[in-house]
Amino acid sequence: MSARETFGYFGPEGTFTQAALGQWHHQHNDAEAAEALLAESVPYATVPAALDAVREGEVDAVMVPIENSVEGGVSSTLDALNSEHSEGTLRLVGEVLVPITFVLAVRPGTREDAITGVGSHSHAWPQVRGWMAKNLPGATYVPTLSTAAAAQGLARGEVGQYQAAVCAPMAAQVFGLETLATDIGDNVGAVTRFVLVKRARGRDGGSSTPEPTGHDKTTLVLYQHDDRPGGLLELLEQLATRGISMTRLESRPTGAAMGSYCFSIDVDGHVADERVGEALMGLQRVAAQVRFLGSYARADRRPVDVRPDASDEAYVAAQEWLDSLR
Amino acid sequence: MSARETFGYFGPEGTFTQAALGQWHHQHNDAEAAEALLAESVPYATVPAALDAVREGEVDAVMVPIENSVEGGVSSTLDALNSEHSEGTLRLVGEVLVPITFVLAVRPGTREDAITGVGSHSHAWPQVRGWMAKNLPGATYVPTLSTAAAAQGLARGEVGQYQAAVCAPMAAQVFGLETLATDIGDNVGAVTRFVLVKRARGRDGGSSTPEPTGHDKTTLVLYQHDDRPGGLLELLEQLATRGISMTRLESRPTGAAMGSYCFSIDVDGHVADERVGEALMGLQRVAAQVRFLGSYARADRRPVDVRPDASDEAYVAAQEWLDSLR
Amino acid sequence: MSARETFGYFGPEGTFTQAALGQWHHQHNDAEAAEALLAESVPYATVPAALDAVREGEVDAVMVPIENSVEGGVSSTLDALNSEHSEGTLRLVGEVLVPITFVLAVRPGTREDAITGVGSHSHAWPQVRGWMAKNLPGATYVPTLSTAAAAQGLARGEVGQYQAAVCAPMAAQVFGLETLATDIGDNVGAVTRFVLVKRARGRDGGSSTPEPTGHDKTTLVLYQHDDRPGGLLELLEQLATRGISMTRLESRPTGAAMGSYCFSIDVDGHVADERVGEALMGLQRVAAQVRFLGSYARADRRPVDVRPDASDEAYVAAQEWLDSLR
Amino acid sequence: MSARETFGYFGPEGTFTQAALGQWHHQHNDAEAAEALLAESVPYATVPAALDAVREGEVDAVMVPIENSVEGGVSSTLDALNSEHSEGTLRLVGEVLVPITFVLAVRPGTREDAITGVGSHSHAWPQVRGWMAKNLPGATYVPTLSTAAAAQGLARGEVGQYQAAVCAPMAAQVFGLETLATDIGDNVGAVTRFVLVKRARGRDGGSSTPEPTGHDKTTLVLYQHDDRPGGLLELLEQLATRGISMTRLESRPTGAAMGSYCFSIDVDGHVADERVGEALMGLQRVAAQVRFLGSYARADRRPVDVRPDASDEAYVAAQEWLDSLR
Repeated sequence: MSARETFGYFGPEGTFTQAALGQWHHQHNDAEAAEALLAESVPYATVPAALDAVREGEVDAVMVPIENSVEGGVSSTLDALNSEHSEGTLRLVGEVLVPITFVLAVRPGTREDAITGVGSHSHAWPQVRGWMAKNLPGATYVPTLSTAAAAQGLARGEVGQYQAAVCAPMAAQVFGLETLATDIGDNVGAVTRFVLVKRARGRDGGSSTPEPTGHDKTTLVLYQHDDRPGGLLELLEQLATRGISMTRLESRPTGAAMGSYCFSIDVDGHVADERVGEALMGLQRVAAQVRFLGSYARADRRPVDVRPDASDEAYVAAQEWLDSLR
Repeated sequence: MSARETFGYFGPEGTFTQAALGQWHHQHNDAEAAEALLAESVPYATVPAALDAVREGEVDAVMVPIENSVEGGVSSTLDALNSEHSEGTLRLVGEVLVPITFVLAVRPGTREDAITGVGSHSHAWPQVRGWMAKNLPGATYVPTLSTAAAAQGLARGEVGQYQAAVCAPMAAQVFGLETLATDIGDNVGAVTRFVLVKRARGRDGGSSTPEPTGHDKTTLVLYQHDDRPGGLLELLEQLATRGISMTRLESRPTGAAMGSYCFSIDVDGHVADERVGEALMGLQRVAAQVRFLGSYARADRRPVDVRPDASDEAYVAAQEWLDSLR
Repeated sequence: MSARETFGYFGPEGTFTQAALGQWHHQHNDAEAAEALLAESVPYATVPAALDAVREGEVDAVMVPIENSVEGGVSSTLDALNSEHSEGTLRLVGEVLVPITFVLAVRPGTREDAITGVGSHSHAWPQVRGWMAKNLPGATYVPTLSTAAAAQGLARGEVGQYQAAVCAPMAAQVFGLETLATDIGDNVGAVTRFVLVKRARGRDGGSSTPEPTGHDKTTLVLYQHDDRPGGLLELLEQLATRGISMTRLESRPTGAAMGSYCFSIDVDGHVADERVGEALMGLQRVAAQVRFLGSYARADRRPVDVRPDASDEAYVAAQEWLDSLR
Repeated sequence: MSARETFGYFGPEGTFTQAALGQWHHQHNDAEAAEALLAESVPYATVPAALDAVREGEVDAVMVPIENSVEGGVSSTLDALNSEHSEGTLRLVGEVLVPITFVLAVRPGTREDAITGVGSHSHAWPQVRGWMAKNLPGATYVPTLSTAAAAQGLARGEVGQYQAAVCAPMAAQVFGLETLATDIGDNVGAVTRFVLVKRARGRDGGSSTPEPTGHDKTTLVLYQHDDRPGGLLELLEQLATRGISMTRLESRPTGAAMGSYCFSIDVDGHVADERVGEALMGLQRVAAQVRFLGSYARADRRPVDVRPDASDEAYVAAQEWLDSLR
């Protein structure tokens, strides 16, 4: 990845998303270059704003959260990626997994018994409910735009509603807060998955889809035909008959009507793989719509387990056999 | 439904949930009794608190939101219902559909050009984004605990961060606010589904599951075996082979690990129906776990379309035939 | 099996079927009793005649061939068992596997170069084609009613058309013929499967279905609905969702129209097994017709491999769980 | 079809197969040319001999029976076509449906009460059992090589075992016999399907597969992997996911072991159709072996009913979409 590329992220500074982008830079650059890149990276106030910045060429790539091991899919990201003007415009080109640990941060000097309100993002709050019930049972929850925004608000002294923030360790540090408690998440081992998003075609017009690595995943959004019973079963069979495993399925309402859903899914493999290509074509035929969001290397680098009869070799042999018949 | 039963809802007053409970009361009582019941109904600050109130016998039934046609499943409700101590304790016994319309409410006398911040629940905000971008592009979003809480806060004059609330028409009225604009939702036709929840067994020890009506649905939570490829496909086939349609599928993370999901689903039919009973047994055998949340009448009273070979008659005939062989 | 029971077989004496019945007797009796039983057993000229003899109570049980490892299903037996008046009347109660070896038998003194015609059953002839092409390329095939009938005809000197018979070693011995060559079958290891057939209810009115042994199979005939696309797939899914393996599938025309087939199948397990019972009911609902021909011990005594989630225990646990919900 | 082509059939003269070939000639030529072609066509004593004649170039095409609406698949033809040296050598290029009607034929002057034996092919005999039981209950069945052979033998006066033949009306006429009864088949409406077989490549090296007509079928033989449970289900799903209907399934033992079967199937569509091509490749990957026997026009000219999402247009559109993603 060239050092000339510019990056953005769902901010403000101090969010887990910034940490994810830092992790990405360090994986793809030496330490010095990574720090320089991170310093230049631009925070955006919302996920849609970050995606718009890529779409309009303000930056080359943005990091956004997509899935949390405790709270599930990040709706605003899923919906922004599914939106009609993302089709053919944006591509997921990589992913990063970041362990999520929360701290209880206060303005220096604040004592625990002075805390009557706690600010945090609505995604984070349910992840610390157990700790709160035990340690601050009387405190009221005050929703904020992000966990970092809770810390930032506290630092600025803007609000009188809360005296403590539940946020990332990094946010407490960035905003000069004091940490009263660490690792207060109920789910030790909570992880959030972030994706790096680029325009589908780079400035040179070339595809931004990374080359296959042998440990890739592909992200799709599937829309069913409303009038087709057993629609989801039919879509899953298009994958099963090609020997493809689905590793994530998120349902999202289409907004068209109550009970009308689309499915955001991840499957093992790369669009360049024969079996994935054939499955995509199968889905495209039987689904009302298929949106291809990208093929990229798995963060955990776990190799995809391909049955011999679903390998590229098997597909090529089958094509040659068919050609010989025709 | 006896007038002696006591009710609660996810409050405060003025939420769509209170409106849903009112709708339920009016459907099951004469106007006078309905108003009396609504007046006595108890608001709870959070969905888990409302469910706890039922569990502990504080009230007999509570109304909570479960699914929005634009924003999808209500995570806190789904998670609270899925939680281990709900199994065998709580039952969904009915549902209500409420059209969602939003108004822009202000303290009397506030002019539109004085609005620099708008308060609302994070579920409501994405539903008015289009209107906001066009009419109040400069306003900042301020998250609140509920749409009614935004109105309430405004009425109390507590906050300086926002001068307008996005809320239900009912909330503006309850809190004495002025309505600057009505029907500001981007999705005309948005609907939220609410469910009435009781203890699985009433005070007399009897099952609280309502009798079959011919237009019932059944709500389940399915957990897959992690080590079983094509797990979801296998679960859906248990329904398909019994001729049962799935009308909703929501994925929710189990929290165990990234990518570990359970599925909250609705299927056509009642637990007392032969085909539903056999499918439940099939799911119970092949799934890691099945949670039965309840069988109840569909709000739209659409009769369930049962194939002749999946009718109770077909099941009884098959059982008699098998008995004759054995 | 009581010594008072009477037996028949598809004859004449000297057929492989008689050998199969002898094998059965020896497996279920001491040597002396077995020989006595075999001596009393009645040959019938055709399979339908043998089945009629059981149906009408002339004998208690008959042995008939049902499947050959080289030539496939024995049509006349399959059709006679599928026929409408077998439904509810007859039951397969056991099976025997007999290795098939053919000899070339002649009247004593006949030399190989004098053989211009060879008599045998049309099922046997294709199994010795290779040997014939190599050793008696000029000989003409003459069809006979059975392999034993070829030997018998030769012994009686009735026919001038053939001078040698392809038959079982036993037939050559029974009819006093000389054996010119042994083991002349092209497929070393050819095996024929025979079934023992009784009335569905014994003289005392009790079911003649044997008790489960843990290594049972169940034989069925399935008729599809003509107007149902993917009908066979749907039937097989009724088995798959209950974790049941199909070990044989034979298609047979129904005679109704070109392309109208029914399927004679064997599945692992016994009608008394929960999973088999439920699958039978499922098939009975979705198929146009299901004929149950019997559950009986496998000849090879290979234990049925049952997935834990398809065991009787899993079914009983699922039923108890369902009862607790209802 | 050029008049220079030479034809053969499973004889002798007077069989239904000859009638089928006559029907084919009349469909593809004017009456005079058809009669000339039929006169030149060569009878072969067995189906394998007929197929060998094509393989070795003795004739260009042969007509053989493949399926009877009452008796099922013609084993000798299925096995000869499935045999290893047919793979890549032979192709089915057309089919003919011939109504099967049987007559009771005797040497002129023979009276019904003089008939103690009746000769016929073992395939024909079960089709007249009802008539025989009613009209000639005392007559013994004498198997012959074909129905025409029974008539021929009678004409030649060779045999003393039977005085009447059950054969095609044409055979009685060809061999100068008298017809005592007509239409004696139990199944009015019985039909036999015959196929025309050529070498896979013509004398000019070109493929002999006919062009698609819109009402085609494709004949395949599928071998399962032995060690794969639910193997047949998996094969059928390869067809179902591509929207392809199976119109015939015949099981045939592979000869390898008891219970080891391959499946001779017909599917709707032509190897040149996109969906059939993809399904063939899918089968080739997951089956142990697939033998392609040919694509040819249906005799009944019933157009293939293709779902819109399985049309060539849908496949081409899906391929273009995939290309745009890659």
